[in-house]
Amino acid sequence: MQKPVLHTLLSPRLLDLYDVADGIVVIIDVFRATSTIAAALYNGAEKVIPVAGVEDCIAIGKELNAVTAGERDGKVIEGLQHGNSPAEYPRNFIEGKTLVLTTTNGTKLLHMALDKGAAEVVTGSFPNLSAVCRHLASSNKNVILGCSAWKDKFNLEDTLFAGAVIAQVKKYFTVYCDSSLMAEDMYRLHCKDLYSFIRKTTHWYRLAAYGLEKDLEYCVTPDTANVLPIYKDGALVIN
Amino acid sequence: MQKPVLHTLLSPRLLDLYDVADGIVVIIDVFRATSTIAAALYNGAEKVIPVAGVEDCIAIGKELNAVTAGERDGKVIEGLQHGNSPAEYPRNFIEGKTLVLTTTNGTKLLHMALDKGAAEVVTGSFPNLSAVCRHLASSNKNVILGCSAWKDKFNLEDTLFAGAVIAQVKKYFTVYCDSSLMAEDMYRLHCKDLYSFIRKTTHWYRLAAYGLEKDLEYCVTPDTANVLPIYKDGALVIN
Repeated sequence: MQKPVLHTLLSPRLLDLYDVADGIVVIIDVFRATSTIAAALYNGAEKVIPVAGVEDCIAIGKELNAVTAGERDGKVIEGLQHGNSPAEYPRNFIEGKTLVLTTTNGTKLLHMALDKGAAEVVTGSFPNLSAVCRHLASSNKNVILGCSAWKDKFNLEDTLFAGAVIAQVKKYFTVYCDSSLMAEDMYRLHCKDLYSFIRKTTHWYRLAAYGLEKDLEYCVTPDTANVLPIYKDGALVIN
Repeated sequence: MQKPVLHTLLSPRLLDLYDVADGIVVIIDVFRATSTIAAALYNGAEKVIPVAGVEDCIAIGKELNAVTAGERDGKVIEGLQHGNSPAEYPRNFIEGKTLVLTTTNGTKLLHMALDKGAAEVVTGSFPNLSAVCRHLASSNKNVILGCSAWKDKFNLEDTLFAGAVIAQVKKYFTVYCDSSLMAEDMYRLHCKDLYSFIRKTTHWYRLAAYGLEKDLEYCVTPDTANVLPIYKDGALVIN
């Protein structure tokens, strides 16, 4: 039997170069959207609604009596209640609630993948690495590992996560894709020094300036929130 | 004094994310356009005119009584005289002549960089690695290492060349760019096994099927045609 195909997408800008229809797209936004989504759902959030704009976030939050969250430049956005940190969503706060989260890079790619006809959209990050791998390995569907990047520019943290997935699941797929080769190499090169290596990335500099080092370390720690967020009826829920 | 900035561009599709104006753009198309351009100029070609289309290639070739060259799927294009192999342009053939070369990926990026107002466009590949590095190190200008990619998809061979350049010149630049970090890592990881590593890339499979292994090995061998092709008045000439 022919194996399904796995590709790694390095920027949302390149999405139309890939055949998304009928496949699974894994949205990867390691710092910090997809890490926070995994953490909130793992801790019992009923669902997470990812929205692009602040106004939508406020409106949907009111309508559903939900927790609203979003940051720009490391600060909670005016009019919203919480930030983008996974640490803000422990079980004793988020259990049973709906979280409306405004992000830029990850949300954009998620909606692009839906528009292009992806059969299934899930989110991935180190906190739910094994859950993502288990799902892909048993899916028998084509897969796009979709790095959300930073304003369409390549970033390392999303690529490292793609590489971590490839290292675990490649035997189940045909991987004929230089992006995937590179991502796996980069992951294998740095999997033993992830905490120090991510300190060299541009996003680390950007966020560490806001005192978010602990957050960022959480975001590259595998399997602390091992659930599979899947997009259904406008929200991410646990599969 | 502040150092100039160096970025690595992984696909022409991302060019508008970078500030190109007043900087140097290095067009990188390792398999095989920029390798062939270096070889032809090193062997005495008067100039190389890169054109996108076959019809332009034929028309300019006639007008200038020049050598026309281009391949699709590993075969010389009908109506043209030669292929894209650097081995086709030894000194006893190309010296003193003009070569009109039709390529897809490299030529596209070159014209995009000119349209965006690049102060200078040069071409780079392993055969002229040191010449490129010497030029950039002494330029005191911002630099974009422009990977031509494959139909806008990331490729490894161009990235490895960008990494080889970065490894040599980074002390002269501010490098705050995840693409560059990755490119240098990939180069350092594979510089000792380039010949075997490139056999894993998608482009290798594509071209090796046409019996081009020797060509491809030439294209990743450093400093066999150490000249600096620079774009002036519609053609690449030796600086």
